[in-house]
Amino acid sequence: MKTEQDRGEARCNQVLDAAADCFRQRGFHGASMSELAKAAGMSVGHIYHYFENKEAIIAAIVERDVAEILALLDSLHDEEDILQALIREAGNNLEEATCGSDDALQLEVLAEATRNPKVLAMVRDGDRLARNRLAETITKGRAMRGLAPLADLEARSEIIIALFEGLTCRNVRNPGVPLDAIATVLRSTLQNLLET
Amino acid sequence: MKTEQDRGEARCNQVLDAAADCFRQRGFHGASMSELAKAAGMSVGHIYHYFENKEAIIAAIVERDVAEILALLDSLHDEEDILQALIREAGNNLEEATCGSDDALQLEVLAEATRNPKVLAMVRDGDRLARNRLAETITKGRAMRGLAPLADLEARSEIIIALFEGLTCRNVRNPGVPLDAIATVLRSTLQNLLET
Repeated sequence: MKTEQDRGEARCNQVLDAAADCFRQRGFHGASMSELAKAAGMSVGHIYHYFENKEAIIAAIVERDVAEILALLDSLHDEEDILQALIREAGNNLEEATCGSDDALQLEVLAEATRNPKVLAMVRDGDRLARNRLAETITKGRAMRGLAPLADLEARSEIIIALFEGLTCRNVRNPGVPLDAIATVLRSTLQNLLET
Repeated sequence: MKTEQDRGEARCNQVLDAAADCFRQRGFHGASMSELAKAAGMSVGHIYHYFENKEAIIAAIVERDVAEILALLDSLHDEEDILQALIREAGNNLEEATCGSDDALQLEVLAEATRNPKVLAMVRDGDRLARNRLAETITKGRAMRGLAPLADLEARSEIIIALFEGLTCRNVRNPGVPLDAIATVLRSTLQNLLET
């Protein structure tokens, strides 16, 4: 039997999925609260019960994305060789990324962030959490291998994240490129950044 | 004395600059033709004389960006060591990129491309030109050094472009990172991708 809290969470996720679809298709400004409500199969009042406005929905979408990245990174901490696992997962996620429809949403949120200080603050807060966790993961992974701590850890983490964010852009601009070839070059680039 | 053609070109650029500003500030859909006209200091009718609609303006903005990339790549072909020049310019452009306000415009165009098939086609056409020119530049640079042609040239080019597009996203998410540290890691990553 589901508790009240479970039901509330399920409802929230229902709104977020519908909102994500609407934002992807019509952009953040093109999608109205009444369209979101229709897509979620709820009344507008019901949506306002969970989210104060569209920005609150974006905040929740950003939080959900960050939580996914943190969960992925945390799952690597149990591996015998964290760096190897990070490099392996990078290639796997590449294939997952090209099947998903999240590129459009990521770009929409980022474009909105350049115009909307509230969205910018959410995006930057989430990014801080994710990049710090990546840096911790790299440090732990290197220590396990007996590699020296990195003086340029911050810069290397930035370049690694830039690679992944850039691949989101590439999915839009050039989706036809063979994924296995990309994954191979991506892995060897990560090896250089993580293991040297 | 300016010719009629020069004047026309200058007027077009005046519209493009004003449009770029409006799109950055209000998004592609938020900016109306009358706002563009006001920003450009022209009548709406005058703007329609140069551009049929907002999509034609985006097409011209995309073409101008691609022309800049092609010009930069072509300028490297006269260098004694093309690969070295490419790596050097990458670091220089990084600093230029963070001073410009073009991140917002790039993201806006890309987000619009995910929703608008006409904009998507423009973006993909431009990307094809730029990535082919990059691949030619790499091939010529390697030949000058006596390095073997690359079987994975397409994948390496993709990863290089992903890095630069990703750095555009990083400027939004994490602008505070020290540029000289990033430039050093970027250059050594490019060395691995271009010279091995």
